[in-house]
Amino acid sequence: MDQRISLITLGVADLRRAMDFYAGLGWEGASPDGDVAFFQAGGMVFALWGRDKLAADSGIEQDTGGWGGVTLAHLVRSPGEVDAVLESARAAGGTVPRPGGKTFWGGYSGIFCDPDGHPWEIAHNPGWTRAEDGTVRLG
Amino acid sequence: MDQRISLITLGVADLRRAMDFYAGLGWEGASPDGDVAFFQAGGMVFALWGRDKLAADSGIEQDTGGWGGVTLAHLVRSPGEVDAVLESARAAGGTVPRPGGKTFWGGYSGIFCDPDGHPWEIAHNPGWTRAEDGTVRLG
Repeated sequence: MDQRISLITLGVADLRRAMDFYAGLGWEGASPDGDVAFFQAGGMVFALWGRDKLAADSGIEQDTGGWGGVTLAHLVRSPGEVDAVLESARAAGGTVPRPGGKTFWGGYSGIFCDPDGHPWEIAHNPGWTRAEDGTVRLG
Repeated sequence: MDQRISLITLGVADLRRAMDFYAGLGWEGASPDGDVAFFQAGGMVFALWGRDKLAADSGIEQDTGGWGGVTLAHLVRSPGEVDAVLESARAAGGTVPRPGGKTFWGGYSGIFCDPDGHPWEIAHNPGWTRAEDGTVRLG
């Protein structure tokens, strides 16, 4: 198995609401059928799909709701950009359970949650290499 | 906010067990401190961290356990490779709640769960473009 993630799908309660939220962050995607939406995200794909359908498709026997131990992160170029993205997420209908601040690992980050409660850490990490094209390298 | 995911962190109960599982799939990563592990995954980073710490860091008020509406996917080159990856995941200590089979969207896929229950769809999707370097493009 190649060391690569091709697609991340987030389960959502209302596809239109979720698409509007990500559009509010400036993301461009499309739903070919009103059922699932796809966004090109660098060399991978980000998708939104009804959580009930995703659970069934993923072989989940019982979905009790809530968070499931997965957090996405997005690296930006500066601490100021962390604060700006968090503010845009709030304006787009998200919540900010952890505002921007210095971290124990020497960077600066905060967390927003999308309307379905999926958390994103927005971070400036001076220890990793962020290329011009947005790809990230350890060290 | 650029249309990009930089990092995915999976919360785990036992870092060593989780690292051994992904090593069993052929993934190479390292834990600088025995607390968190990082794997370079194409132009992004894949991480494993204690689920309790990830929950606290992500601003999750209460983690009730279980799945949270996020499924990762990995595209391979053929239906046969889907079956091979699922079998290697089972051999490495994962479960296979959905074996390989034809899908409603015209491809072939199955699901494995890692030892912490995080599902991965392994898929052959003839409708998307998978470049030699493993990156994926819609259409």
